[in-house]
Amino acid sequence: MQCIVGIDLGGTNIVAGCVRTDGNGHFGLLSEPTRAEEGADAVVARIVALARQSIAAARQEVAGLEIQGVGIGAPGPLDIHRGIVHLTPNLGWVNMPLRERVRAGLDLPVALDNDANCAVLGEWWRGAARGTKDAIGLTIGTGIGGGIIVDGRLYHGATDLAGEFGHTTIDANGRRCKCGNYGCIEAYASGPNIALRAIEAIESGAETDLPRRVGGDLSRITAQTVYEAANDDDPAALEVVIDTAKFLGAAVANLVNIFNPEVVVVCGGVTLAGDTLFVPLRREVSRRAFKPAVQACRIVPGELPGCAGVYGAVRAFQEQVEAGIIGPVA
Amino acid sequence: MQCIVGIDLGGTNIVAGCVRTDGNGHFGLLSEPTRAEEGADAVVARIVALARQSIAAARQEVAGLEIQGVGIGAPGPLDIHRGIVHLTPNLGWVNMPLRERVRAGLDLPVALDNDANCAVLGEWWRGAARGTKDAIGLTIGTGIGGGIIVDGRLYHGATDLAGEFGHTTIDANGRRCKCGNYGCIEAYASGPNIALRAIEAIESGAETDLPRRVGGDLSRITAQTVYEAANDDDPAALEVVIDTAKFLGAAVANLVNIFNPEVVVVCGGVTLAGDTLFVPLRREVSRRAFKPAVQACRIVPGELPGCAGVYGAVRAFQEQVEAGIIGPVA
Repeated sequence: MQCIVGIDLGGTNIVAGCVRTDGNGHFGLLSEPTRAEEGADAVVARIVALARQSIAAARQEVAGLEIQGVGIGAPGPLDIHRGIVHLTPNLGWVNMPLRERVRAGLDLPVALDNDANCAVLGEWWRGAARGTKDAIGLTIGTGIGGGIIVDGRLYHGATDLAGEFGHTTIDANGRRCKCGNYGCIEAYASGPNIALRAIEAIESGAETDLPRRVGGDLSRITAQTVYEAANDDDPAALEVVIDTAKFLGAAVANLVNIFNPEVVVVCGGVTLAGDTLFVPLRREVSRRAFKPAVQACRIVPGELPGCAGVYGAVRAFQEQVEAGIIGPVA
Repeated sequence: MQCIVGIDLGGTNIVAGCVRTDGNGHFGLLSEPTRAEEGADAVVARIVALARQSIAAARQEVAGLEIQGVGIGAPGPLDIHRGIVHLTPNLGWVNMPLRERVRAGLDLPVALDNDANCAVLGEWWRGAARGTKDAIGLTIGTGIGGGIIVDGRLYHGATDLAGEFGHTTIDANGRRCKCGNYGCIEAYASGPNIALRAIEAIESGAETDLPRRVGGDLSRITAQTVYEAANDDDPAALEVVIDTAKFLGAAVANLVNIFNPEVVVVCGGVTLAGDTLFVPLRREVSRRAFKPAVQACRIVPGELPGCAGVYGAVRAFQEQVEAGIIGPVA
């Protein structure tokens, strides 16, 4: 059986798995902490070791497994043609030739693409956006990223930077964002900013059970704490989730009016909030965007939590072979 | 010589011209008032008559002219596959089979696309965005429209509604827009809203020569009046143009972060404001968008005022023949 190794490199964890070339299933899905503080060489060695472990584990599951190559989804602005990660604040890398480093370590052809692009491409290939031609995805975690599928392929833009939906302004004079801009959707709806807005609500005396959930230590509140409390009908947590839906609704409405997509997939931990988030999100998009574009578009949670990035990295490998960006597979 | 007739159908004027199939020049460029109040049949008859006049005029300029077909750029949501204009508030049309009506009138193959799409495609084919792969254009007039060029072709989205940049929110709680949403860029930077903000400035006592320019009748102030006054250093007009640049800057920064385009072309009367607009516009985009994406992107005025839509309608005809949306040309 032919497989491709997909690697999802995050600031916290590395995930690797062997995915069938037709996308129908995966083997040897493994995860390790990234431990970026140990430096680039250690992280590259860990990627190579995890890929080898994943291949070995997959071979125990399936006889006659052949590996065509490796796709990596990595954070940060990067150059898919040269295989270089320009800059990753989370990993502390500058102009890192990641593709060549991993290729040398594994002696397999390697493709590199952006991690958010890969997550969205994975959802398009095998998840919530499969079967569509034009799809949009947002990834909501520590930051907010995105990916654009045009005619069944990733759209990269002039210098592989496209899809930075997290840094689109929804309030020109709004909250300051880490990127230097004001009113970016990321400044409202990323995981840490969801937690921050909950803490602000507690500090201003909102009715809530949240402090008890974290043993009184507000610094331990995460977005997930907020979703769980909201699902238990905690009033302040519910309000934070509904406000998040409204902020996200403005950003998603913009994407609906810009792209007229068949589907907007929302990926990441935020999907744990379920209907508490998605019902008001869809309502806000309907209120803001053009009705015929809203009618043409589903707004749905990702269907591949934990492995969208792995599937997408594999599909990105195939795309880059097809486009001649990396050499043909033997 | 082979030509295609391009028709730019607007709420105020119809423009028609015969463009060489290689895009190197046009003949018989003519314009007529649309007079939408006379009804759809009269407008269709006027389109057919103007196309015939344009062909006749072009034949006087060039011997042996052959016409391959007709491209029409029309306002409103429309269906390029069925050739139907769904709705045009400015013309009062609902589900108008414009392509078939014009085809029957001229006995030539006809393609239909959105007017803003056509203007941007024209700038890509023969204007300020030529030679690029991924380009974005905004058209600023009575409303704000847009077009998206991906890999040298118009991107239409799921139901031909893509590119509605005018209705992207830059201030979630901002000015009410005609579309029902709040804080759309169109509510700040369309021609009528530029004029309205100038009138608001006059009424609040700003220092300005604008009333004198319109004989004291403020209702005669248009965006063009404001640009002309700004170019003569009128303080209130300058402030309106600079504020317009800031609002537009937030919207264009979003497009730069979303598309990472090689160029953003700004089309329409607003380009008359020249550097007074474009210098602060570029500054605001630099302030808001990611530096590497800004560095990869030119922000420029259109180079085909008055005929971008005609050139683009011709190129749209060619695109639709290539894509098999309309039949092959004999």
